[in-house]
Amino acid sequence: MERISVKKLLGTAPIHQEVEVNGWVKTFRSNRFIALNDGSTINNIQCVIDFEKFDEAIIKSISTGAAIKIKGNLVESQGRGQSVEIQVSEFQIHGTADADTYPIQPKKHSLEFLREKAHLRVRTNTFSAVMRLRSALSYAVHTYFQKNGFYYFHAPIITGSDAEGAGEMFRVTALDPKNPPLNENGDVNYKEDFFGKETNLTVSGQLEAEAYAMALGKVYTFGPTFRAENSNTSRHLAEFWMIEPEMAFHDLNDNMDLAEDFIKWVIKYILENCGDDLQFLEKRLLDEEKSKPQAERSELPLIEKLKFVADNNFKRVSYTEAIDILRNSKPNKKKKFEYIIEEWGADLQSEHERYLVEKHFKCPVILFDYPANIKAFYMRLNEDGKTVRAMDVLFPGIGEIVGGSQREERLEVLQQKMADLGIDEEELWWYLDLRKFGTAVHSGFGLGFERLVQFATGMGNIRDVIPFPRTPQNAAF
Amino acid sequence: MERISVKKLLGTAPIHQEVEVNGWVKTFRSNRFIALNDGSTINNIQCVIDFEKFDEAIIKSISTGAAIKIKGNLVESQGRGQSVEIQVSEFQIHGTADADTYPIQPKKHSLEFLREKAHLRVRTNTFSAVMRLRSALSYAVHTYFQKNGFYYFHAPIITGSDAEGAGEMFRVTALDPKNPPLNENGDVNYKEDFFGKETNLTVSGQLEAEAYAMALGKVYTFGPTFRAENSNTSRHLAEFWMIEPEMAFHDLNDNMDLAEDFIKWVIKYILENCGDDLQFLEKRLLDEEKSKPQAERSELPLIEKLKFVADNNFKRVSYTEAIDILRNSKPNKKKKFEYIIEEWGADLQSEHERYLVEKHFKCPVILFDYPANIKAFYMRLNEDGKTVRAMDVLFPGIGEIVGGSQREERLEVLQQKMADLGIDEEELWWYLDLRKFGTAVHSGFGLGFERLVQFATGMGNIRDVIPFPRTPQNAAF
Repeated sequence: MERISVKKLLGTAPIHQEVEVNGWVKTFRSNRFIALNDGSTINNIQCVIDFEKFDEAIIKSISTGAAIKIKGNLVESQGRGQSVEIQVSEFQIHGTADADTYPIQPKKHSLEFLREKAHLRVRTNTFSAVMRLRSALSYAVHTYFQKNGFYYFHAPIITGSDAEGAGEMFRVTALDPKNPPLNENGDVNYKEDFFGKETNLTVSGQLEAEAYAMALGKVYTFGPTFRAENSNTSRHLAEFWMIEPEMAFHDLNDNMDLAEDFIKWVIKYILENCGDDLQFLEKRLLDEEKSKPQAERSELPLIEKLKFVADNNFKRVSYTEAIDILRNSKPNKKKKFEYIIEEWGADLQSEHERYLVEKHFKCPVILFDYPANIKAFYMRLNEDGKTVRAMDVLFPGIGEIVGGSQREERLEVLQQKMADLGIDEEELWWYLDLRKFGTAVHSGFGLGFERLVQFATGMGNIRDVIPFPRTPQNAAF
Repeated sequence: MERISVKKLLGTAPIHQEVEVNGWVKTFRSNRFIALNDGSTINNIQCVIDFEKFDEAIIKSISTGAAIKIKGNLVESQGRGQSVEIQVSEFQIHGTADADTYPIQPKKHSLEFLREKAHLRVRTNTFSAVMRLRSALSYAVHTYFQKNGFYYFHAPIITGSDAEGAGEMFRVTALDPKNPPLNENGDVNYKEDFFGKETNLTVSGQLEAEAYAMALGKVYTFGPTFRAENSNTSRHLAEFWMIEPEMAFHDLNDNMDLAEDFIKWVIKYILENCGDDLQFLEKRLLDEEKSKPQAERSELPLIEKLKFVADNNFKRVSYTEAIDILRNSKPNKKKKFEYIIEEWGADLQSEHERYLVEKHFKCPVILFDYPANIKAFYMRLNEDGKTVRAMDVLFPGIGEIVGGSQREERLEVLQQKMADLGIDEEELWWYLDLRKFGTAVHSGFGLGFERLVQFATGMGNIRDVIPFPRTPQNAAF
């Protein structure tokens, strides 16, 4: 007799056939009905036992969290809420779960409590649904790119250079931490470290992805990236997964087209493949928001929100237009913004992005053509000499979900920009080589995967969409 | 007119239609024939220009490595080696590549030379084929697991514990490297570090994957792992990608079944989807091996070797049987082995594994039931009290490609083993929790992804199958 997953069992026509299934007890009521789950789906299979046939001690060890093996006949269910159930003929306890000490009891636990039990929280309905969705979204990402002629590229994790000059990095070292070797200047002598130089954890695989795009045409990364920023917010992690496509011969419009098409495709994928988990999460979110004031509740239920994004065009707005809108907006005139927009050139804050997306356009927005001096050195300078071909995709409730640009492909312009910003050419000699030999228009973007999972699951805190979150003061497990 | 990739063009029926294609010049001969490649395939499209129609200066800038845009009509090719070609009506240089300074010229470069140019080597046929295969294999890995009910699990990269006690780790820190804060004992005070404790780069996601398997049933990791070992060999990297499936309710036999089925499936996938690249790499390997003595050449050409693995059963041999075979083998009796096998309990060296696979069985071998004291603490102790349910998959030319085991699910046995080895229970409190609450038989394995890519591509050095290798004294790019 083949073992079968709960997911498959629930889709099987019941003809009184004998089946075997393993899983964990979700609930056990009336000494008769076991709701069994094996993680393959949010749904449980009901297993009906005749307690008079079994030893009382064994019956007592059936409690929430216990791992058991069931054999029995699959029959049409008499109860509500399920089409099939198992009439148990044999069962065996793999492992018990003492109700007095097992933390995951069949009641509502706070997300904060569960964060302390990150090794067990995935046994709850909420976290198992989130993590199945995370898995499906990951596969959707790979499938989209592979079906569209992109090659998966593994960017290095340990790197000798700070790609974007983007904030603080974690140092990677094998030196004696207490007494590191020093050089003649009295500085740490990284020549004696494992790699013979100072190394850090990557903040982005973009620059290396550019090297690969300029050979393979279209590539994408999907790997961990790191920020040693002391940000204790619901939107930041010190370790997170990033997706970075990079395409030769693609300009900024192609880049925006790709970002929009990509996001819509992966959302459609989960709408088509993860209905049960999405329905559960939608209901969870509605319940959670009941206690919130109307103004803080989501405008749309989860699944409708996802369909809305998948089915509607993103609004494309230049930075210049956006500044006009913001300058004339009510919250700006009434000084409700923390940062009042006074003139062109201002960096947009989260409050401004949210106003544009949630109040003004009421749909995802792509902002493009930003002022050069608030963006990174590698972005393509426009002919106006003051804006760059950058674009950000802004999402309701999430803010920036994608940041990208056309890259500066002209050697002299790039060199001038690096000189202006004091970036050493020797550090990036190989990046400049890409402009010396067979350079061409190219573009790419980065998408923070956890932001996408947050959007798709409706989870408010980014710590709840990654298995073992790393944040300041927390690297447990 | 839509842009089209070279791969698609080469599969298009030529009806004199106008096409546009972008790519890099591989060769330009007779001032007339441009072999153009855009990375989408190993094959080039021939573009025929009438040099009398174009400016001489422009013609001169067409050299190997230059990026160009071509417009023209797609016609049946008159020449050999391709079915279609483009009669060029317009072309435009995106970026030149000066023949005097561009390192990637149309001639044979040594792999060692190309390692110094890791940002450009992917522009060669060999490395573009290897990296496309790496991408296809990655996708095959995801597809296999997703289609078989596994959920993708992102194991943490930064970790507070040494999972396997497996060798040296890289420290991750944001402390002042020169003057780290010290505690009252005069040791580095990691409480002041970013995570409030000492942290390292992960050597394996297994223990965390076990936590997820005990909730979602079947999970797999596919992410970077690290070893700070000073191994300067053709088989070791300091940063490499690992695949680690972990399955609840699976014993060692299920585990061996899965490993074999998985490897065969992904190899079949590339045989079906990567024919052009495999043919190129097969020819490359044959050429390379021509200069080697017969005994060092591969027994089978690359594609035949892959088919052999995909189509034949792996031989399953217990450690005890293997020791018998080795003890009675010629090289052991004639003392040709560096390490002579004297008795049961000896750890197997690479030379022994290769003998079993390449000389004795002549096929992939799975060794199982190893002595407990040469294996890790978490492996399931057999009823004999001296062996554990471990298994290694050994491949010709590669050696160990998979290492796995059934995990010790019994709390008391695991605690005893940890005590014997001096592993602190407080370090792994959460791992013990998995045995306290709903424990069950479970198993998993780890597969070093680069070893698989080496096997699939026939590349001899592991540094040549990852984009930017990290090894002792090398973290360039």
